[in-house]
Amino acid sequence: MASVREKLLHVAQPGAVGVPRSKVTVVGVGQVGMACAFSILQSGVADDVTLIDVMVDKLQGEVMDLQHGSLFLKTAKIRAAKDYSETADSKLCIITAGVRQREGESRLALVQRNVEVFKQIVPPLAQHSPNAILLVVSNPVDILTYVAWKLSGFPQERVLGSGTNLDSARFRFLMGERLGIHPSSVHGYIIGEHGDSSVPVWSGANVAGVSLLSLNPELETKQDAEGWSKVHQDVVNSAYDVIRLKGYTSWAIGLSVGGLTQSILKNLRSVHPVSTLVKGMHGIGEEVFLSLPCVLGWSGVCGVLQQPLKQQEAQKLMQSSQTLWGIQKELKL
Amino acid sequence: MASVREKLLHVAQPGAVGVPRSKVTVVGVGQVGMACAFSILQSGVADDVTLIDVMVDKLQGEVMDLQHGSLFLKTAKIRAAKDYSETADSKLCIITAGVRQREGESRLALVQRNVEVFKQIVPPLAQHSPNAILLVVSNPVDILTYVAWKLSGFPQERVLGSGTNLDSARFRFLMGERLGIHPSSVHGYIIGEHGDSSVPVWSGANVAGVSLLSLNPELETKQDAEGWSKVHQDVVNSAYDVIRLKGYTSWAIGLSVGGLTQSILKNLRSVHPVSTLVKGMHGIGEEVFLSLPCVLGWSGVCGVLQQPLKQQEAQKLMQSSQTLWGIQKELKL
Amino acid sequence: MASVREKLLHVAQPGAVGVPRSKVTVVGVGQVGMACAFSILQSGVADDVTLIDVMVDKLQGEVMDLQHGSLFLKTAKIRAAKDYSETADSKLCIITAGVRQREGESRLALVQRNVEVFKQIVPPLAQHSPNAILLVVSNPVDILTYVAWKLSGFPQERVLGSGTNLDSARFRFLMGERLGIHPSSVHGYIIGEHGDSSVPVWSGANVAGVSLLSLNPELETKQDAEGWSKVHQDVVNSAYDVIRLKGYTSWAIGLSVGGLTQSILKNLRSVHPVSTLVKGMHGIGEEVFLSLPCVLGWSGVCGVLQQPLKQQEAQKLMQSSQTLWGIQKELKL
Amino acid sequence: MASVREKLLHVAQPGAVGVPRSKVTVVGVGQVGMACAFSILQSGVADDVTLIDVMVDKLQGEVMDLQHGSLFLKTAKIRAAKDYSETADSKLCIITAGVRQREGESRLALVQRNVEVFKQIVPPLAQHSPNAILLVVSNPVDILTYVAWKLSGFPQERVLGSGTNLDSARFRFLMGERLGIHPSSVHGYIIGEHGDSSVPVWSGANVAGVSLLSLNPELETKQDAEGWSKVHQDVVNSAYDVIRLKGYTSWAIGLSVGGLTQSILKNLRSVHPVSTLVKGMHGIGEEVFLSLPCVLGWSGVCGVLQQPLKQQEAQKLMQSSQTLWGIQKELKL
Repeated sequence: MASVREKLLHVAQPGAVGVPRSKVTVVGVGQVGMACAFSILQSGVADDVTLIDVMVDKLQGEVMDLQHGSLFLKTAKIRAAKDYSETADSKLCIITAGVRQREGESRLALVQRNVEVFKQIVPPLAQHSPNAILLVVSNPVDILTYVAWKLSGFPQERVLGSGTNLDSARFRFLMGERLGIHPSSVHGYIIGEHGDSSVPVWSGANVAGVSLLSLNPELETKQDAEGWSKVHQDVVNSAYDVIRLKGYTSWAIGLSVGGLTQSILKNLRSVHPVSTLVKGMHGIGEEVFLSLPCVLGWSGVCGVLQQPLKQQEAQKLMQSSQTLWGIQKELKL
Repeated sequence: MASVREKLLHVAQPGAVGVPRSKVTVVGVGQVGMACAFSILQSGVADDVTLIDVMVDKLQGEVMDLQHGSLFLKTAKIRAAKDYSETADSKLCIITAGVRQREGESRLALVQRNVEVFKQIVPPLAQHSPNAILLVVSNPVDILTYVAWKLSGFPQERVLGSGTNLDSARFRFLMGERLGIHPSSVHGYIIGEHGDSSVPVWSGANVAGVSLLSLNPELETKQDAEGWSKVHQDVVNSAYDVIRLKGYTSWAIGLSVGGLTQSILKNLRSVHPVSTLVKGMHGIGEEVFLSLPCVLGWSGVCGVLQQPLKQQEAQKLMQSSQTLWGIQKELKL
Repeated sequence: MASVREKLLHVAQPGAVGVPRSKVTVVGVGQVGMACAFSILQSGVADDVTLIDVMVDKLQGEVMDLQHGSLFLKTAKIRAAKDYSETADSKLCIITAGVRQREGESRLALVQRNVEVFKQIVPPLAQHSPNAILLVVSNPVDILTYVAWKLSGFPQERVLGSGTNLDSARFRFLMGERLGIHPSSVHGYIIGEHGDSSVPVWSGANVAGVSLLSLNPELETKQDAEGWSKVHQDVVNSAYDVIRLKGYTSWAIGLSVGGLTQSILKNLRSVHPVSTLVKGMHGIGEEVFLSLPCVLGWSGVCGVLQQPLKQQEAQKLMQSSQTLWGIQKELKL
Repeated sequence: MASVREKLLHVAQPGAVGVPRSKVTVVGVGQVGMACAFSILQSGVADDVTLIDVMVDKLQGEVMDLQHGSLFLKTAKIRAAKDYSETADSKLCIITAGVRQREGESRLALVQRNVEVFKQIVPPLAQHSPNAILLVVSNPVDILTYVAWKLSGFPQERVLGSGTNLDSARFRFLMGERLGIHPSSVHGYIIGEHGDSSVPVWSGANVAGVSLLSLNPELETKQDAEGWSKVHQDVVNSAYDVIRLKGYTSWAIGLSVGGLTQSILKNLRSVHPVSTLVKGMHGIGEEVFLSLPCVLGWSGVCGVLQQPLKQQEAQKLMQSSQTLWGIQKELKL
């Protein structure tokens, strides 16, 4: 007897329909991975969102929960990959997996443990989606982006880290709060190493092309009576504050990665501060990844902007690059 | 000396700008409350999203995390309310707070504990936003919507529960999976009590107006070789499955509430199965809330659809209403 | 000396970036073509929108005007094609070009003139985008979809016409107006030949699965005191009314085609009444295109729904198919 | 006998639902007015879009055409106002109506004829929506914004003109084309008088805070080998070019006004160059409207940015203001 489907549908096209065109794989279904996946789903930019994780139950539960919302979404396929073969043909792979610091663990030991995690993730991703862009979100993001680059064998422009994209968004929000202006109209970049050593480029901070520094030359110093330098301090503290208060960060990093995803998948060629291989820029000689403003598109990093930096700013980048290299050279890849 | 803001801005309009026009308050910043808030923020439908919770740290952390994503959003104001006065002028208040069942606790005892929670929430909400719509998401949703109605003193059309809106979305997704059709083109309603006793209205299940029951009259019976009745069973099990696998449900309920929010705030008058006062419909005599297809808009429930029900379906509604009333009449409000 | 671009950008990726993934070509930049293009651009679903027309100045002007709005759009590429080679790699080609009826001209003569127009359009489109979906909007849409099919040599599922998708949207809007319900919650299909001979399938018209016919069995007859049959008459008159009042139709057809574009490019598999090859369905023996509810996706028409029709409804389809075939067999292709 | 609607709906809330919250009135249903209305509808930002024009048939036809697309939109109400009482309670009124220059007509004579048109429009708009924002799009926009301000009696912050918002969008698009970067990441403002006398503020043009002028100090001069000064010339020519090629401009101005509408209705406080009363700024003594970067929100112009201008730039603003005042003082208001 014919099934309901057979009775309902006169099937015009029974066969396969070719590879997905805007498939995104998210590795890791923790709070960060899920906020990324959810942001991407709500933006409707992907036609296939595939999640993968070693925590099989959690993975299954998260994907079921997302699928139950399909009615409200415009993404054809949402699925839990049993193994990496199901991530095949991804245009973008977002890595959010990783282990956390143990008490008393050195930074090097932590990174090395994450290298072991990445060894399980990056080679099979690269194998099944040899033309994908790899976007690393796991921390420490700059080193792990380097690790992903090395493990993937991909050309440098196809491996990037979320870097200071979120730091910059926080920077713009906090400046906007002080000025009573929406962050989309308040411009400013935080570059360099994601986290405590990040560098705010005050010289470029502006609203409608009006340099804030020109209005208050003491802006970046401790002497400033308005305490603008505190804005960068607040950015640095943001992650600590949110983690202290709610246990982890999720929404803002999810939205931030959602924005990067749109620029990459739609080939928008818009500019975002993300972690990219900086060797040869700003006098850096090491093979390290740091955030600089990048043009993003189908090729990944289509271009890196050459901001004029003050000596002090360039110096901080150099220090970061030496610190990072100091760890990287000890890693067993 | 003039501040950067004063130098930058020639202020044309120094004063207040009046009350928000599309303010939403979300009570409770657990996984459900946050998924609701995030969905609403990404849809851009509200101009003010205010969160409130007794867990002050968690509340503060969640709101900071959302605010850090402001650059990527189009909502003017996101804030943590210190007390209910800051929820004033809400157009919609979504209640997701509540306590969970303790081991060995009776359903009545659980509900009574939630009544005590609602006594701290509903009267101040109603006082500060006397014209708002109240949307209850906390479980058991049907009883707690009744409780919110009683505690608010609001007219019946302005108090509703998320009810079987999510159950119906799951129903449509699961039917769509079987048919190879997007759930937005597969129609079907689950009505009645949210949860195990919900009622699938198979007579109305259709694609493009083609009744599935007409294609397979055994659809709703255990005799059906294709096992369509399992679809409803799967819907009932959905919440259990997701909770077992990931610990809670969040994304789908968030998207589902996001959809209700849009219909209400934009006065769309679209139809959703939500929990509404059903006394006088389908032969129900009790003052209980059950899900029926409702037209939603600025007034809240602008109309309830009178579906023709089979005797068996109507009977289940009656049973649910008696069960609910059995509990409600014991409550100390 | 280095250019501003060279100074600004450290180019990471100088080479080509591969073929577009969601390219749409719109043929014809009249009011209909432009409303289609604008709807598609605002939905952000395409990564490349290419327009082409023999009216070179008009084409150039329309594309410049769209490009000037790029800041507000999320589409990487908007361009005027000088020749069909620039339409290469389109995933969807929308044909809105065509000539209008001259005074005293027979329908056959008009169609033959449009065949000549299509001979200039379809073969080069098909040559440069051999895997594209062809969506015909030009009128008479059912015959011209047949013509496009024949001229393209494409398999039947990859050639469709906008057909009664707009008629059905008008139908739902007008029913919704009477019921005080948003058209997205009022369901009903108009099928068959686009225009005067279209067939409203009253048996499937419903809200939340409640058949309107069950509430008023006279709905589809002239006897109905509420005059519901006038709703279909109003749909038929809609195009005439709008043309009489403003000279042409544009916005609704643009939005309607925008919706089809989303379903196709995102592979949503949602259901829309569009013109498809109906030979072998509902007893039709001719090789004609008529609108039936179709599942749309990457393959174009992925399935056709088999609605149970009344004898009278099926008869109208047969009559239309004979009329259409009567013209088609005289055409010089 | 009960109607279908009565049988279908158990009406919970029969009465009125209060005033619209985000109503927009568009005056004038020419190509510009319709592109504005359509952009606003597709963005879903308004809950009521009301159109009004003296050309009754055209008005009726355009609104019917929009209404037929309701299924695809999320705006509760689209209507043609028979008289200005139906525009009541608008939050934003957009004026696109006006007469065109006759051959040999002086600019003063043209403006005076438009003053007569505005006398029919502005007072009734202001009467029925006394708290609305007035946004003038009709040309010459700077003078007509002054006229609307005078005729409305509104405070200055509630009357603005679309001014150089579109010129700036074109500027950013054209710079972006040269740099291979999306216009949303290329920043630059054109201020002053809309049209031939507009002033590009090269000092603020930047990508990621990197001043283009710092990369090429000759950028704004005729000596520049790359011809960047041509970019401004191209912006000035844009309107002429588009009008010569297609007869009018529509899409880009529609999108540009759509963006302003979002910032105002959602109280975003983002920055846009729009025509505002500039008396007292940049040394201007006349009561004229010119474009400067403004913070937009519920109050209309919530703040005006004080860009540092070169003497030459400020001088051009002064010249414009004298030219405009020369005309304005002759007008019979």
